[in-house]
Amino acid sequence: MNDQTRPRAASRSGGRAARRAARASALPDHLRPVRPGLEGGLYRPLADTDMQKIHGAALDALDRIGLADAPPSGIAYLTGAGCTLGDDGRLRFPRALVEDTLARANRSVTLHGRDPAHDLDLGGTRVHYGTAGAAVHMVDADGRSYRDSTVQDLHDAARIADRLDNIHFLQRPMVCRDIPDNRDMDLNTIYACCSGTTKHVGTSFTEPGFVADALEMLHMIAGGEEAWRARPFVSNSNCFVVPPMKFATEACQVMENCIRGGMPVLLLSAGMAGATAPATIAGAIVQAVAECLAGLVYVNAVQPGAPAIFGTWPFGLDLRTGAMTGGSGEQALLTAGCAQMHRFYDLPGGAAAGIADAKLPDMQAGWEQMCSNVMAGLSGLNMVYEAAGMHASLLGFCHESLILGDDLIGQALRCVRGIEVTEDTLAVDQIAEVCLGGSGHYLGTEQTLGRMQADYVYPALGDRTSPKQWAEMGKPDLIARATARKEAILSEPAPARFDAATDAAIRARFNIHLQG
Amino acid sequence: MNDQTRPRAASRSGGRAARRAARASALPDHLRPVRPGLEGGLYRPLADTDMQKIHGAALDALDRIGLADAPPSGIAYLTGAGCTLGDDGRLRFPRALVEDTLARANRSVTLHGRDPAHDLDLGGTRVHYGTAGAAVHMVDADGRSYRDSTVQDLHDAARIADRLDNIHFLQRPMVCRDIPDNRDMDLNTIYACCSGTTKHVGTSFTEPGFVADALEMLHMIAGGEEAWRARPFVSNSNCFVVPPMKFATEACQVMENCIRGGMPVLLLSAGMAGATAPATIAGAIVQAVAECLAGLVYVNAVQPGAPAIFGTWPFGLDLRTGAMTGGSGEQALLTAGCAQMHRFYDLPGGAAAGIADAKLPDMQAGWEQMCSNVMAGLSGLNMVYEAAGMHASLLGFCHESLILGDDLIGQALRCVRGIEVTEDTLAVDQIAEVCLGGSGHYLGTEQTLGRMQADYVYPALGDRTSPKQWAEMGKPDLIARATARKEAILSEPAPARFDAATDAAIRARFNIHLQG
Repeated sequence: MNDQTRPRAASRSGGRAARRAARASALPDHLRPVRPGLEGGLYRPLADTDMQKIHGAALDALDRIGLADAPPSGIAYLTGAGCTLGDDGRLRFPRALVEDTLARANRSVTLHGRDPAHDLDLGGTRVHYGTAGAAVHMVDADGRSYRDSTVQDLHDAARIADRLDNIHFLQRPMVCRDIPDNRDMDLNTIYACCSGTTKHVGTSFTEPGFVADALEMLHMIAGGEEAWRARPFVSNSNCFVVPPMKFATEACQVMENCIRGGMPVLLLSAGMAGATAPATIAGAIVQAVAECLAGLVYVNAVQPGAPAIFGTWPFGLDLRTGAMTGGSGEQALLTAGCAQMHRFYDLPGGAAAGIADAKLPDMQAGWEQMCSNVMAGLSGLNMVYEAAGMHASLLGFCHESLILGDDLIGQALRCVRGIEVTEDTLAVDQIAEVCLGGSGHYLGTEQTLGRMQADYVYPALGDRTSPKQWAEMGKPDLIARATARKEAILSEPAPARFDAATDAAIRARFNIHLQG
Repeated sequence: MNDQTRPRAASRSGGRAARRAARASALPDHLRPVRPGLEGGLYRPLADTDMQKIHGAALDALDRIGLADAPPSGIAYLTGAGCTLGDDGRLRFPRALVEDTLARANRSVTLHGRDPAHDLDLGGTRVHYGTAGAAVHMVDADGRSYRDSTVQDLHDAARIADRLDNIHFLQRPMVCRDIPDNRDMDLNTIYACCSGTTKHVGTSFTEPGFVADALEMLHMIAGGEEAWRARPFVSNSNCFVVPPMKFATEACQVMENCIRGGMPVLLLSAGMAGATAPATIAGAIVQAVAECLAGLVYVNAVQPGAPAIFGTWPFGLDLRTGAMTGGSGEQALLTAGCAQMHRFYDLPGGAAAGIADAKLPDMQAGWEQMCSNVMAGLSGLNMVYEAAGMHASLLGFCHESLILGDDLIGQALRCVRGIEVTEDTLAVDQIAEVCLGGSGHYLGTEQTLGRMQADYVYPALGDRTSPKQWAEMGKPDLIARATARKEAILSEPAPARFDAATDAAIRARFNIHLQG
C-alpha cells in the first residue's frame, strides 16, 4: 500500500475519553476475552482415516510387540486384566482388552487447585497451559548465564506462576539441585510448589517409597486424608515407560502407589523421534499412543476409573547431531497430532509444547514457543505442558521467560477462542449505519467500545508503542521489563499459603529447606 | 519426568559418522522438506455455515450499501457490468452480478519470477511467504534505533531476500524516503527490487500517470513488451479501496492502467478493525470480502479474466489507544479467516501475517511473527504478505529480522507440510524390529537416516546447542549472527541482474539513484 492509504493511529480525543471510561469498569471473569478451558480443535492435522490408521497401528504394536520390564505387581495386574506374558518377558495386550479399557476409562477428569477457582476440567477440547519439565539449570537472562537450579528458584517460579492469568497450572519445571537427597528433594519440591501457588501442581517421585511421605504431607496441607481425596491438588507426572515399548519398572510402582493414594496420574511417554521412537512423525505418534494405551490398561487394572491423563509426549531430535530439540516445527506437529488422537479417544490428554531450543529469551525463543503453543491450543490439547519458561531444549528454566510466556500464551488463547460469527458480529447493519449516514468510521461507536475488553487481549509487557513513543520512553528493553515484573512479584510479602500451625507441623515432620 | 528418564543427546560415534555421510549428499529441490507452494488448509477457523453467513453478509453489504468514490472510468465500467449508481454517488452491486463474476474470475493465477524457478502458482491452498508493506523506517537492530529508509536499504533487502529459500517473493517492504519525487520513487523502487532479486516483485504506484513509465522500464528489463506480457514478473499492490466501502479514486485509475499493461493486480483492502472496519473479527472480514468482491467485479469489467489476487488485509487495532497493531492473536485470526474465505471462493488470495509490533527483533517479535505466519500457512493462504522483517506495526523494516524470518518461515512451512501417514511412516514393522530383535533404539537405522534430510527442517541461525556447547562458543548472540549473515550476503559481488546494455539503457532513460 502507499503512504496515502497506510493505516494511521487514530487520535480523536472524544473517542479516547470514552475508551478510557469503558476501561475503568473491569469485566467479570466469565466475560474475560481468554480464560482456562477455552475450546480448541479447529486445527486438525490428521484426517479421520489417518487417526484410524494410527489407532490400528498402535493396537497392532501392543498385540505383536507388547511392553517389557513391568514390575511383578504390574505383571500381576495386567495378566489379571487379560494381557499375556511371553517367554521374552513382554506383556502383550489383546485388541479386545485395549478396546474394553477405552470404553470404560475415566473421561471426566478434573485437576483440582487448592483454590477451587483454579480447578481444571479436562473434558472435550478444553485447553489449559502450564509449566512442566525437569530443567537442571536456571537461566539468568540478564547475565546470559546458566547455573544449577535450586529449591528457591522453584518456589519463586511457583509464586510467579500464581500471579500469571494464562499459566493455569504448575507442574514442577526444574529440579532442586541444591537438595542432594532424593527423598528430601521430592518432598521439598511439593512444599516449594504448593507454598507458592494455589493452582494445580504436578510433580514426580524418584522412588516408590517416597510416595507415602508425600501423601502424608499432602494430607497435612489439605487438612486430612478425606479432604485430600475429595480434591487432590497434586498430580503425579509419571514416566511409566522407557521408550521404545518398555515399562519403567520403578516408575510403575510409583504409579501404583499414587493411584492408591488418590493422586491423578499423568501417563507420560517421552520418546524421542529418531532415537527412542521412529523418526517419522506418524511413527512417533503410533508408539506414544501404544505406550499410553498400555498405561491406561495398567491404571484401570489397578483401579477402574482412576483419573489418568493420556500423556503422549514425543520429542523431536536434531538428526544432524543426535541432540534433542523441542522448538521445531516437527515438535509442533508431534504435539498437535497427539492432541488429535486424544480427541479420537475422547480421553483427557496432555503433551509438551512451548519448548525453546534457544538459550535465552530472544527472538528464536519467541518463535519457537509460539509455534507449538498455538498449534497445541488450536488442536484442542487439554494440558499443554512445558508451555512457558523452558529453554535449551528443556535443560534451562527462565523466570523472565515464564513472565513473558504469560503474554505469549494469552495471545495463543485468543487464537484458540477463535472467530465468533453471529448476526451481531457480522455487523452489516453497523457497516450500513457508518457508511450511509454516520461518521464514516467505527472509532468510539457503541459496538466498538463494547468489544474493547470482551474480545481483545492486551499484552502486559509486549510493546505496542510507536517508534516515537518508544524512543521517548527510553527504548524499553523487553527482558529488563520482565525482570522488573519478577522483582515486583517476589518483593511482595510472601503469600501465607499454609496457615501457621500447618506450616509448623510440616516443618516439624519434614526436612524443609525453604526459609519459613 | 525425573532425571533418570530425561531424554539425553545421543553420542554414538558410529551413528554420527553415518549421519555425516548422509548429509554430504544434498537433496534435489523437489525432495527438500519445505518449498514454495506447500498445501495448507487443515486449520479451519470458520465452519461452513460461518462462511456462508459471511458471504451472504458481504453480498448484502454490496447490494444495500455499495461503494462510493469510483472514478468516472470505474463508474462507466461498473454500470456497464450491471451496477447501479445511486443518487448518493454509491455504486451498488446486485447479487447476481457478483455471483456471475465469481463464476468467471481467473482461478489459475501464476505470479512469475524473472527466473522461472521462482514462479508462484496460486492455485488451491498453496502457500507462499514474502515481504510487503510501506515501512518508512529502517530498524538498526544493533544500535536499537530507527531511521528513514532509503533506496539502498530496499535494494539490500531485495538482495537478501533473493538468497533466502523461504522468502518466496519480494513485495516492496519499505518506502525510499531519500527520493522525494514520487515518480522517481516509484520507478526507482522497481529498479531497486528487480536488480536485487529474480523472484516475483510487488509494488505500488502513487499516481496513475506513473504506470506507463514503469511499464516502459519493465519492457526494457524483460526484453520487450511481448516478453513482459508473457511472463509479468511485477504485480501491482493496489489499495483500491479506502475502507469502509469507498473506492480509492486514483488507485482505481492505477489499477485500470496496470490491467491494460498486463500487470497482475493485488486487490488490497486494508481496513482497521475498530476504526475503518467493524471491531469484530467476523465484521472486519465481511467488509474486506465485500470490498474485494467489488474490486473483482471492477477488474473483470475492465478485462474479463485479468489476473487478480483477492487481498483481504484487515488489520487489528489496539482499542485502548486507537493505534494499529499487527502482532496480536486477533490479527492472526483475521488473516486465517480471510484465507478460508479465499478457499470458499476458490480464488487466489493474499493477506498480511508476520507483522511484529515489537520495535526490535526480540522475543516479542518472534512470538508475534510466528503466530500469524503459522496460522496463515495452516489455513492455506496463497500469498502471505508482510511475512518477514516488519516491526513497529509496519512502520519499521529490519534486515536482521528478514534473515531470521527465513528460519521462522521455514519452521512454519514444516508445519504446513503436516503429518504424512502411510504404512511406511506408521512404522510398526520398524518398531517391532527395534524392540524385538534390534538395538533397542532408532539412531542410525536406515529409516532414520532416510528421513534426516527429507523430513526435517534445520534452522540456519536458530541455535540448538547445549548450554555447555553454547558457552564454549562464546554464547553467540542471535542478532549478531544475523548481522554477520547480512554483511556476508551484501559483501558478495553485486549480482548483475540486468545485462550491461539493458542497465545502461535504463539509466539513460530514467533517473536511477542506485550506483551502477
